[in-house]
Amino acid sequence: MIAWLLFFIYMEEYFKQKIRNVPNFPKEGIMFRDITTLINDKESFRLGAEALYRFSNDQQIDKVVGIESRGFIFGGLLAHQLGAGLVLVRKPGKLPYKTLRQSYVLEYGEDILEIHTDAIKPGERILLHDDLLATGGTARAACDLIEKAGGVVVQLSFIVELAFLGGKAKFEGYKVDSLVTYQGE
Amino acid sequence: MIAWLLFFIYMEEYFKQKIRNVPNFPKEGIMFRDITTLINDKESFRLGAEALYRFSNDQQIDKVVGIESRGFIFGGLLAHQLGAGLVLVRKPGKLPYKTLRQSYVLEYGEDILEIHTDAIKPGERILLHDDLLATGGTARAACDLIEKAGGVVVQLSFIVELAFLGGKAKFEGYKVDSLVTYQGE
Repeated sequence: MIAWLLFFIYMEEYFKQKIRNVPNFPKEGIMFRDITTLINDKESFRLGAEALYRFSNDQQIDKVVGIESRGFIFGGLLAHQLGAGLVLVRKPGKLPYKTLRQSYVLEYGEDILEIHTDAIKPGERILLHDDLLATGGTARAACDLIEKAGGVVVQLSFIVELAFLGGKAKFEGYKVDSLVTYQGE
Repeated sequence: MIAWLLFFIYMEEYFKQKIRNVPNFPKEGIMFRDITTLINDKESFRLGAEALYRFSNDQQIDKVVGIESRGFIFGGLLAHQLGAGLVLVRKPGKLPYKTLRQSYVLEYGEDILEIHTDAIKPGERILLHDDLLATGGTARAACDLIEKAGGVVVQLSFIVELAFLGGKAKFEGYKVDSLVTYQGE
């Protein structure tokens, strides 16, 4: 048990070292956690995929839902490893067939996400995946879409959680896992 | 040899049946080939990944480059299966670090793609992957970016090729593979 905990702390530190910190992106005062360096390195990419897979491999996942567009990177990989199908949640106008829509509030204004009406069968067990859990607005909207479509969100997984933004509070009662968590900026 | 050819024809027909045809998307007169149904089904998703992997598994690929955003779906999966790193080519303003840029001509106007300056090491063997080969403008711009960065594009792979748009002509001397090819609209 303690050995596992130490291993987890070690791995989180490893992944943090593989993530590039870019100050003032996308705007002044924000420290952007850039995962492109983590996926660029075949070894950390492989280990990241392995860790995400281990979060979910006992959850009997039917479908992985990836949020546009960085959620597709590990979303496809996770679906494949878990023997599940992959569903895309996208910005409006990108999905060609009939969709369900969900609007959500941003810092300034609002945005919309869509999912195909036939992407999820009622009762299917869903893993929702994205690269980043910040305020949780996007993931919450995606979660609502999945539940509207009749899916059961059994887990959410992220590469990076910015814990100081409190997004996890939007997912009480859900299983939420992240590769790395930042407690402060 | 003939058995393989028959198998390939059979598999192409199978993938075509898994792709949804959406008329008049994104605009009047266009038949959109919707791969969301192919990836939604865990079995066709698995077989699609397997077929794409077989196109490239003898090419000693160092990095897979996926084009935003549908190129990320199988891009991550392919990189993982090939033991390679993954590189993102994105629309302007999305990549947080220093980038190389390439503009390209669209039907109306032009667009720009970016890649991180440090994403590819000189001489690395690159598989460029996207969901769709249409006129080839996007893939050509991505190819130019990779070569500017010092990479060697050893192969391009796509889910769907719209052969009647002639995109392949932009890649003479390159190895180009697609899961399915449409000869006409």
